[in-house]
Amino acid sequence: MPPPIITLTTDFGTADSFVGTMKGVILSIAPDAQIVDLTHDIPPQDVQAGAFAVASAYPYFPAGTIHVIVVDPGVGTQRLPIAVATGSTTFVCPDNGLLSRALDQTGARVGGVPFAMARTALPDTWHAVHLTNADYWHQPLSTTFHGRDIFAPVAAHLASGSPIESMGVRITNLVAFAVPQPTSVSGTSIGQVLHVDRFGNLTTNLRSSDLPQGQLEIHVGGKAIAGLSETYQDGGDLIALIGSGGTLEIAVRNGDASRALDSTVGAEVHVISRS
Amino acid sequence: MPPPIITLTTDFGTADSFVGTMKGVILSIAPDAQIVDLTHDIPPQDVQAGAFAVASAYPYFPAGTIHVIVVDPGVGTQRLPIAVATGSTTFVCPDNGLLSRALDQTGARVGGVPFAMARTALPDTWHAVHLTNADYWHQPLSTTFHGRDIFAPVAAHLASGSPIESMGVRITNLVAFAVPQPTSVSGTSIGQVLHVDRFGNLTTNLRSSDLPQGQLEIHVGGKAIAGLSETYQDGGDLIALIGSGGTLEIAVRNGDASRALDSTVGAEVHVISRS
Amino acid sequence: MPPPIITLTTDFGTADSFVGTMKGVILSIAPDAQIVDLTHDIPPQDVQAGAFAVASAYPYFPAGTIHVIVVDPGVGTQRLPIAVATGSTTFVCPDNGLLSRALDQTGARVGGVPFAMARTALPDTWHAVHLTNADYWHQPLSTTFHGRDIFAPVAAHLASGSPIESMGVRITNLVAFAVPQPTSVSGTSIGQVLHVDRFGNLTTNLRSSDLPQGQLEIHVGGKAIAGLSETYQDGGDLIALIGSGGTLEIAVRNGDASRALDSTVGAEVHVISRS
Repeated sequence: MPPPIITLTTDFGTADSFVGTMKGVILSIAPDAQIVDLTHDIPPQDVQAGAFAVASAYPYFPAGTIHVIVVDPGVGTQRLPIAVATGSTTFVCPDNGLLSRALDQTGARVGGVPFAMARTALPDTWHAVHLTNADYWHQPLSTTFHGRDIFAPVAAHLASGSPIESMGVRITNLVAFAVPQPTSVSGTSIGQVLHVDRFGNLTTNLRSSDLPQGQLEIHVGGKAIAGLSETYQDGGDLIALIGSGGTLEIAVRNGDASRALDSTVGAEVHVISRS
Repeated sequence: MPPPIITLTTDFGTADSFVGTMKGVILSIAPDAQIVDLTHDIPPQDVQAGAFAVASAYPYFPAGTIHVIVVDPGVGTQRLPIAVATGSTTFVCPDNGLLSRALDQTGARVGGVPFAMARTALPDTWHAVHLTNADYWHQPLSTTFHGRDIFAPVAAHLASGSPIESMGVRITNLVAFAVPQPTSVSGTSIGQVLHVDRFGNLTTNLRSSDLPQGQLEIHVGGKAIAGLSETYQDGGDLIALIGSGGTLEIAVRNGDASRALDSTVGAEVHVISRS
Repeated sequence: MPPPIITLTTDFGTADSFVGTMKGVILSIAPDAQIVDLTHDIPPQDVQAGAFAVASAYPYFPAGTIHVIVVDPGVGTQRLPIAVATGSTTFVCPDNGLLSRALDQTGARVGGVPFAMARTALPDTWHAVHLTNADYWHQPLSTTFHGRDIFAPVAAHLASGSPIESMGVRITNLVAFAVPQPTSVSGTSIGQVLHVDRFGNLTTNLRSSDLPQGQLEIHVGGKAIAGLSETYQDGGDLIALIGSGGTLEIAVRNGDASRALDSTVGAEVHVISRS
């Protein structure tokens, strides 16, 4: 049987020993675990960036993978520590919106103002528990490092075969933020920049199916782009293409679109049809 | 049997291939090793930061773990390459003070001026060797990369079951620096900032048992903080709490205490009782 | 049998989830793989830096290791995705010069202007294929992330025992850049800086055998250095020594030679004999 996979996504950075400490706790319980770092460079306390990173990567892991996410400004407060099994994947994290995008991908919708938090009912296929059984925790429990004391050991016990039901009390809704959805007004598709990657490429929430028909013109950061390119080397300096996540992406050939357009997460992107 | 764990702590950064090279050497000797990065972002040649990182993390790893530490400004000089077995843990590193804090945690005390280096007798339970047996090294031996040529292969041979006794000559003292200890003057507890983490939180050396009784007032960086908080969200903007390592920590809610107080490693922290 | 080793070298950084996604794809196919990060901090689209990193590290890995390299400005264009088996090592990468230094180490020479690209015949012992068999790819194939869709899954299938022959069409030459070679003019050895490491040390291409006999004087960045040191602590502030890769290296004791000399990759280094 292949070793169980546990991924880690945090805002801890890699200069301190926080991540190493979590790995020590995991390996003390599940010595065969295959631990994979998704990223530890989520900006401090940026729950939305954490939600984006996890939702982008988790579908590429094999069934049975356990994803630990620790972006936890409310550590030690009343926010719940949770584990959520979706059928093929298990998430272990604080209940603070980190699963909003994963939830959104299932079709669940949180109403209200974009990025506002609300309690959201879970899909029937998801099984969530409020982690309350301290038998599965590292002792003594701190009030400031639940990554070490709750999330890492719970993930390791899950990897070792302990059932999620034993770890706490079932809950049927999660805290989630309203993920902004593309809209269409008079034939113009309007979306938002979700993420700026290392290269300065702007990832948006506009899927191919959200775009108008015909010859497209893309407006972002005060600039207009004519048509979609196939690759980063195709077209002019400033280009738009369908990125690897299946959504519209804005890039600068061998350059940094975020800097060139002075645009970042939240910026609006308009797509019109010229034909 | 679970795979042997080897952790790596260096000042090599992650942009060069130094760390990858060490892993190649380890896996060539111990192909089943589970290699864990503690951190490679120790500031260049900062032995004290290396000592802090390892002492913070190693107690959370399972018995038998081997910790390789390479912060080695004196590489190729007369400083000794060593391996030190404590009973449950083995360290492999240069003898330049990197084990000072791990040693301090055992109750061993280095006299003299804080951070001054001195030879320090080992606890009876520690078994240390000066690594002299070149059969366990990577050849040819360089004068500038003992991480690759001595420390990585020695750790891998230890992980594969070779006894520490075979690797060199026993020594009974180490180079260590005097770890600053909290003091108490007229009811005021005086400690030092040991570390600034990614969030700008200031970790001190004041344990709960070092603090006065009653209603506390904490003075640091020219500011006063009334009382201890339970969590990072509790109290005012500038807070003090007992951190995950069991010592007093100074934080700014959703902010950076190091920047707010213009304070860093070595800054004094005074705690007085108002009642 | 030990787990197959797959190393990853990219310019993806570690803040995004690109690398984590590639690991998910690999572990979905080869769940026992031991994945090792060489570095993900290659400067964006810097093929030469990628070629240097891989050539420096790969000889230290055990036979059978598979090295995935993704520095791929031409992703989705006509540049070929390739796999190259050298007998002991397999590389999986775009055909854009990334193997130039590994190739140079075999004695193959690319003519022409340094760093200019040319098609170069492979050594007889190397077996290269243009990856054309989509059965081994992740579907749907994107035009912008072949790290996820081609290179990671091909490496995982190779690690699982699928033969390289089945993955595409054999090719007999690669795109490579002309690696600058040291020269000797009137007894002066002339080399180039190949790399600046984390400490600011300048690695050159001058091997011991390239240097003149007698008492040496090294000229770089407008400064002269008398003689070779043995270690970083030996000699004056600015020193020259034979580094861990076997070539001349310029360093500043406990400092940063690149900054002190205002010199970086490409700078010329002259070595003369004073005796």
